[in-house]
Amino acid sequence: MSATKQLAEAFKKSRYQIPGHGPRNIQVLKHALAELDGSLESDIYGKGAIIEEFEKKIAAVLGKESAVFFPSGTMAQQIALRIWCDQKSLSKVAYHPLSHLEIHEEDGLKKLHRIESVLLADKTRVIRLEDVQNMDTEVACLLLELPQREIGGQLPEFDELVAISAYCREKGIKLQLDGARLFEILPYYQKTAAEVCSLFDSVYVSFYKGIGGLAGSILAGDEAFTQESKIWKRRHGGDLISLYPYILSADYYFEKRKDRFPAYYEQAKELASLYNSCHGIKTVPAEPVSNMFHVHFPLPKEQAEPVILSACEETGIGFAASILVVDEANSYIEVSVGDNYAGIPAEALQQAFRVLDQKLQEVLR
Amino acid sequence: MSATKQLAEAFKKSRYQIPGHGPRNIQVLKHALAELDGSLESDIYGKGAIIEEFEKKIAAVLGKESAVFFPSGTMAQQIALRIWCDQKSLSKVAYHPLSHLEIHEEDGLKKLHRIESVLLADKTRVIRLEDVQNMDTEVACLLLELPQREIGGQLPEFDELVAISAYCREKGIKLQLDGARLFEILPYYQKTAAEVCSLFDSVYVSFYKGIGGLAGSILAGDEAFTQESKIWKRRHGGDLISLYPYILSADYYFEKRKDRFPAYYEQAKELASLYNSCHGIKTVPAEPVSNMFHVHFPLPKEQAEPVILSACEETGIGFAASILVVDEANSYIEVSVGDNYAGIPAEALQQAFRVLDQKLQEVLR
Repeated sequence: MSATKQLAEAFKKSRYQIPGHGPRNIQVLKHALAELDGSLESDIYGKGAIIEEFEKKIAAVLGKESAVFFPSGTMAQQIALRIWCDQKSLSKVAYHPLSHLEIHEEDGLKKLHRIESVLLADKTRVIRLEDVQNMDTEVACLLLELPQREIGGQLPEFDELVAISAYCREKGIKLQLDGARLFEILPYYQKTAAEVCSLFDSVYVSFYKGIGGLAGSILAGDEAFTQESKIWKRRHGGDLISLYPYILSADYYFEKRKDRFPAYYEQAKELASLYNSCHGIKTVPAEPVSNMFHVHFPLPKEQAEPVILSACEETGIGFAASILVVDEANSYIEVSVGDNYAGIPAEALQQAFRVLDQKLQEVLR
Repeated sequence: MSATKQLAEAFKKSRYQIPGHGPRNIQVLKHALAELDGSLESDIYGKGAIIEEFEKKIAAVLGKESAVFFPSGTMAQQIALRIWCDQKSLSKVAYHPLSHLEIHEEDGLKKLHRIESVLLADKTRVIRLEDVQNMDTEVACLLLELPQREIGGQLPEFDELVAISAYCREKGIKLQLDGARLFEILPYYQKTAAEVCSLFDSVYVSFYKGIGGLAGSILAGDEAFTQESKIWKRRHGGDLISLYPYILSADYYFEKRKDRFPAYYEQAKELASLYNSCHGIKTVPAEPVSNMFHVHFPLPKEQAEPVILSACEETGIGFAASILVVDEANSYIEVSVGDNYAGIPAEALQQAFRVLDQKLQEVLR
């Protein structure tokens, strides 16, 4: 078995796992359905109480007029950008070079919608006001991802966000929020979801990151925007006869976890300082601004893997299921704090980090 | 309450319902999950045992090299046509004027893929060999829907299908099967699914029509084709982190119902003759060739509704949940025979048709 596979297996079998909410198995859905009466009627092609009530509820949470449930964020965001581009008859949008749309969607935006992307900022930092001001091309829409996942979940300060929003409104640039992890950043900003969303014309939120549902997303905005998004949802093949498995689980885990994000955030800061106390490790950001961060090792993936693996096997604590490559000499893990963290006995966690630190010292000597 | 709504309500509340498998409620999913162990791991972005094993199983049923699970048929078929068009650098396909792609998808094929459609045959009949031979435009692909749902589920004879397939192969036209109701037509053709599919380059089948799952579809073909379809699935936003609610229910109901289609077909013929024995009614086709057919009334929708409604309320037998418009003077209902039919006591059914006939006589007098 490869070291990569061994690590994934060891993580699964570990007594306590540091990140996440627990295994992604079908019990997640069974739990969500357990208390619901079997006679509850399915949504049918976007209609019916299950879908309409959830859309209404999340629209209110986000402070938007209207909301539409989508099977995926990929679909929801391409559609949002298409609507804004069509409205301005300009097939150009701006976003971060590490946006999900740029690196994880096989160029759907370009291949399906023929929309060009202007990449703002560089790969190491978030988009700033001056990046937007200095753009030399006209765009229909700017998409901001909060937090910027691929750089450890970094955030601009809220004031800068306000300034970017004001600038975009002045220039007639629509602002779309990639809020895949919106609920995760509210404790740092000390704002409500509606306060953050009020800066944006349209908003996407996900239900399987911090919320921990099965899949699915909400796209919210004004009524004309969401009505048009439903037509595009059908064109994309996303207007399924039944979306209820995703909606019911989204609702169930939203209710279960919506008030836990302040705790995840505090735990993420505590956990980051445990990592930062180890030899050679640096977290990005140095202090998390959400429930997530990256842990960087000054080691190639092939050397970091056995370290994490042996620390996991020795202590019964699963640090991560996989290690990712930065470059030939550096690697990192992505951490998202969820329900698992609070279940780890403090002494076991301290001990695990002592062991990890010692193993790093040996490798880095 | 409108007559349309009253009819829908009366159908739901009726003691016995003629068409379908029963209510579309969340019990359908609960049943499919009930016997499965909660620790069964989710599929993750198209990988994992749940999705891969089902894809392999259905590929074998269809006699194709490979298969991919999609959340919807809309997505699967647009993608199939796109792949064939790209391969020939020709953005033109042919299908029936009442194809799902032409009338139910908000022009997704045109708006997302910029593929033009050439409409073959007229709206009252299926595509024949001579329609294909007489096409005056070159196309990359011909899509055939078997059975042609919007005209009551009509079929060409199998020999004609063989001839169309041979002609397309000779001319380098790819042949895509819209097999939303493929399992439903096998008893009439007296062929296996693989025998029918062997005439086609690529095949889509659905899991929520005759099979009665929640949603979802399979697209099958050779390995290169299905690999490319996975890239497009991601572009469409259909490569969800978890598709298992659809896959598990598709598998559960496929196993439960795959051998019942001969019975549904026989029952559909029996049911059609009951309808045809009523004053003014004509079914299309006159004798069904699958589990489905249409029932035409020489009455406007507004006059047909109270007839069906009162017959339903008087007898406790639900004929249909809705009546559709043909034109100002004519209307129809769509019937698909499923598990419900066999549960109706023969005498109650006979009595219901006597009452329906009498009411029709009164209205048509």
